[in-house]
Amino acid sequence: MSKITAIYPGTFDPLTYGHIDIIERASPLFDKLIVAAAVNSSKTTLLNIEERLEIINVSIIEYNNCNAESFEGLLTDFAVKQNAGCIIRGLRTVSDFEYEYQMALMNRKILPDIETLFLMPSEKFSYISSTLVREIAKFGGDVKEFIPPLAQKLVNAKFR
Amino acid sequence: MSKITAIYPGTFDPLTYGHIDIIERASPLFDKLIVAAAVNSSKTTLLNIEERLEIINVSIIEYNNCNAESFEGLLTDFAVKQNAGCIIRGLRTVSDFEYEYQMALMNRKILPDIETLFLMPSEKFSYISSTLVREIAKFGGDVKEFIPPLAQKLVNAKFR
Amino acid sequence: MSKITAIYPGTFDPLTYGHIDIIERASPLFDKLIVAAAVNSSKTTLLNIEERLEIINVSIIEYNNCNAESFEGLLTDFAVKQNAGCIIRGLRTVSDFEYEYQMALMNRKILPDIETLFLMPSEKFSYISSTLVREIAKFGGDVKEFIPPLAQKLVNAKFR
Amino acid sequence: MSKITAIYPGTFDPLTYGHIDIIERASPLFDKLIVAAAVNSSKTTLLNIEERLEIINVSIIEYNNCNAESFEGLLTDFAVKQNAGCIIRGLRTVSDFEYEYQMALMNRKILPDIETLFLMPSEKFSYISSTLVREIAKFGGDVKEFIPPLAQKLVNAKFR
Amino acid sequence: MSKITAIYPGTFDPLTYGHIDIIERASPLFDKLIVAAAVNSSKTTLLNIEERLEIINVSIIEYNNCNAESFEGLLTDFAVKQNAGCIIRGLRTVSDFEYEYQMALMNRKILPDIETLFLMPSEKFSYISSTLVREIAKFGGDVKEFIPPLAQKLVNAKFR
Amino acid sequence: MSKITAIYPGTFDPLTYGHIDIIERASPLFDKLIVAAAVNSSKTTLLNIEERLEIINVSIIEYNNCNAESFEGLLTDFAVKQNAGCIIRGLRTVSDFEYEYQMALMNRKILPDIETLFLMPSEKFSYISSTLVREIAKFGGDVKEFIPPLAQKLVNAKFR
Repeated sequence: MSKITAIYPGTFDPLTYGHIDIIERASPLFDKLIVAAAVNSSKTTLLNIEERLEIINVSIIEYNNCNAESFEGLLTDFAVKQNAGCIIRGLRTVSDFEYEYQMALMNRKILPDIETLFLMPSEKFSYISSTLVREIAKFGGDVKEFIPPLAQKLVNAKFR
Repeated sequence: MSKITAIYPGTFDPLTYGHIDIIERASPLFDKLIVAAAVNSSKTTLLNIEERLEIINVSIIEYNNCNAESFEGLLTDFAVKQNAGCIIRGLRTVSDFEYEYQMALMNRKILPDIETLFLMPSEKFSYISSTLVREIAKFGGDVKEFIPPLAQKLVNAKFR
Repeated sequence: MSKITAIYPGTFDPLTYGHIDIIERASPLFDKLIVAAAVNSSKTTLLNIEERLEIINVSIIEYNNCNAESFEGLLTDFAVKQNAGCIIRGLRTVSDFEYEYQMALMNRKILPDIETLFLMPSEKFSYISSTLVREIAKFGGDVKEFIPPLAQKLVNAKFR
Repeated sequence: MSKITAIYPGTFDPLTYGHIDIIERASPLFDKLIVAAAVNSSKTTLLNIEERLEIINVSIIEYNNCNAESFEGLLTDFAVKQNAGCIIRGLRTVSDFEYEYQMALMNRKILPDIETLFLMPSEKFSYISSTLVREIAKFGGDVKEFIPPLAQKLVNAKFR
Repeated sequence: MSKITAIYPGTFDPLTYGHIDIIERASPLFDKLIVAAAVNSSKTTLLNIEERLEIINVSIIEYNNCNAESFEGLLTDFAVKQNAGCIIRGLRTVSDFEYEYQMALMNRKILPDIETLFLMPSEKFSYISSTLVREIAKFGGDVKEFIPPLAQKLVNAKFR
Repeated sequence: MSKITAIYPGTFDPLTYGHIDIIERASPLFDKLIVAAAVNSSKTTLLNIEERLEIINVSIIEYNNCNAESFEGLLTDFAVKQNAGCIIRGLRTVSDFEYEYQMALMNRKILPDIETLFLMPSEKFSYISSTLVREIAKFGGDVKEFIPPLAQKLVNAKFR
C-alpha cells in the first residue's frame, strides 16, 4: 500500500480541545496528518492566520507525523498540491453532519480521488464549538476548559 | 507507521451497491479491509450467514486487500482478535448518524484503542437500504438497481 | 394539461385527523385523489382492511373527487394500474422526512414517471400518530381528539 | 406557590448511569420526585418489574425526596393519581427529541394541567442507552461503565 | 426544599405568542420566573432594549411571580447574581435542540450548579420565530397572529 | 377542477441543476408553473435580478407551461396576485425541512388558501446548494457540474 497523507482542514479560530482530540485519534491512522488552517479573505476571524497556526503548532508538538499549514482557496486544490489521500473531519451534531455531507459530495465531484473520513470526538468535547468559545471569552467568561493555554491568552487579548 | 487493518462490519442482508461503494472507497486507505458479517442469533435474517458471505466474497474479488469474515458476539472482541486499528461505517442519513454515534462512543468505552471512521457513499446509492430492498423483493419488485446479481438470485429465491 | 390522479397511500390503522387534514389539502389540487390503504400480510394491524376502509370511506364523503381503495404489494405497481401521476405523503417530523426521502427515491428508481409530493398537516395535528393513538386506546385513554368517531368505536372495541 | 411533585417515567430496563444523572439533576428542583417504572404487558422486558424497582430503590437512596413506583396503563392517569405537577424526561439525541415532542403534546391534550420538562444528562452519559447495554451484556461484554452494580448483577444473570 | 428562581433568557426581538406560552407554562412550576432580555452590543436588534422590556412587562402582567430584567454579558453571571436555580428554554425544532444542547452543556461547565430545563410550546405556536415575524413585518405583512398588540405597534413603526 | 397555477419561489443566486430538476418534475403536474425570483433589498446577492431571471429564462425554454417572474415583498402577496393555488419547494436536507416547515405554516396563517407542496430533487443533485457553488466559484473552482452554462459565465465574471 502506498503511504497516505491525511488533511484535517478547518478555520481553527481558535483550535479547541475538541479539535486536538480529533488530531490525537487521526494521527496514528495515517502516515502524515496536515492540520490545515483556512485563510478566508471574505470571512473575518478573531485570530489572524499566524496566531491560529502558532496555537496549532504548540498543540501538535507531541504528534510526530503532524504538521500545521495554512491554505487559501479551494481545499481540493490544496489536497492535490499536498498529494493527500483523504480529508479528515470531526462530526458532533446533526447540523455538522448535513453540512459536511454536502461539502464532502461537492468536493468528491471536483476531485474524485480524495475521500472524506469522519471521526467523532470524545463525548467530553462534543459540545465545544469555536463560535461559543469566542462568545464566552468576549463577555469575560473563563474558557480554560475548552481551549489550550496559548489559545486562551491570544483570545483573551483580543477582548481586553 | 504500523500497518492498519480496518473492519467494515454489518448484517449485509443482503450486501447492496451502497455497501460495495463504501468498500471501494475504504480499501485503498488501509493495508487490509475485513468485511465482517454479523451472525446474530436473536435477529432473524432473510439470508443465512453462508449466503451473505458468498455474496460478499463474489463482490470484493477485485479488491486485493479485502476479505470476508463472519463474527458472533461483540464487534470489539472480534476487532481485538483481528488486531484491527479501526472500524469503518457508512453514513447516509441523520438517523444513521445518531445510532452510529451512540454505538461508536460505547465501543470506544469498551475498547479505547480502536477508532470508528465514517465514510459517505456516493449520492447514487445514498437511498438504498437492505430493509427496503427486502421489502421490494418480497412484493416481486425488481431490485437489480440496488444489489448485485448473486444477491438478486438468492433474495428472490426466498420469496418464490 | 392531462388530468392528474394522485394516490395517498398509508396503513391508516386507524385514519387520524392528521390524515384527514392532508386529504382536505390535497384533494383540491388534483383531478382525483385515491386514499390507498395497504394490505400488508407480514405486518399485523389492529384493524382489518375492511374496518380501515370503512373509516376512510365515512371520512372522505365530503370530498367529491376522493375514493378509498386497498392495495397489496408494491405501491408503484398499484400506481401504474391506477394511471396515477403522483403520490402524496404527509411530513411531520425529521424522522418522517428521512424515511420518506429514501422511499421516494427508491420508488422513483422503480417507476421514474411518478412523482412524490409532500404536504404538511396543520400544526394542530402535527403530533398525532396512529401508533400513539393505538397505545393510548389500549390503556383506556380517550382518543376523541385524535381520530374520527367511527375509528374510536372500532379501535375501542378491539381493547374491550 | 404550592408544592410540586415531579414524575420521571421510563422502562428502566435497566436503570443506567444516564438515568441516575437525570435524577440527581431533577431532584433538587422539585419537592418530590417519583421515579416511575412502566409495567407494559405487551412489551417484553429483560428484567421484571420487581428487579427494575429494586435497582432504582438502591440507586436513589441518597436523594431524600425521591421514591420509586411502578405504574400500568396511561402515564397521565398515574400523574393524576400522584397529584403531579410535571413530568421529567431526559433528552440526548434528535430522535429522542422528536419522539418525546410527540408524546408530550399528546399527553398535554389528554391532561392539559401537567407540563413535561426536559433535562440533558451529562455529556459523559449522553451515549448510554438501555437497549445497547442489554445487547453488550448479551454477548458477554462488560457493562460496568454504564449501569450500577446491582443492575450488572441482575442483567448478567439473565444471560448466563 | 429551598425556593427556586428560574430565568427565561432570550433576545425577545420581539416577544412572540410562543414565548408567552412558555412563560405561562413555566411560571406555576417555580417560585419566581425572571424573563431576561439580552443586551448584546455586537448583534443588532430591531427593537431597542427598552422597547423589548416594555413588551415583556405588558405581557406578563397576569403572572404574579414573573418579572422582566435585562442583562449584559454571560447568562451564567446573571444567573449567579439572581441566585437562580435553573434556566428555562423553549424547544421547537431539531435545530433548536442541537444549539440549546451545546449551550446547556457549555453553561454547565462554567456554572455546574445551575440546570437548564426545556419546555415545549403549544403546537399552535411551534412555528413562530421572531426572525420570520420581523421579515413578514418588513414587507408589510400582518403579524397579529404571532405577536401581542404592543409588539405589533413597535415593530410596524420601525418599517414605516 | 379549476386550473392550478403553482409558484416555485427562490433566490436562485444562481439557479442550479438541482433547481432545474425540481422544475422538470413539477411542471407536468400543474397547468402553469411560475419560477419566481425574490428581489430582497436587504440581502445582497451575487447576481442581480436581471441576471438571475436571464438564467432562469434560458433554462426553462423547453417547459412550455413555465415562465420566470421576479417578486418583491411577501410571497403570499405575490401568490394572490398570480392567483396561484400552490407553492412548490424542494427538500434536500433535514435543515431544509425544518426551515421550510416553519415557513409553510407561517404562510398558511397569512394565506390559508394556498398550499405548499414539497418535492425531492434527484439524488444526483441533492448536495448542490447555491451557497456552496458561489464559494467554489470564488476560489476559481470549476462549477460546470452544478450550474448551467449561462450561470457559469455570469458567476465566473463576478470573480474575475
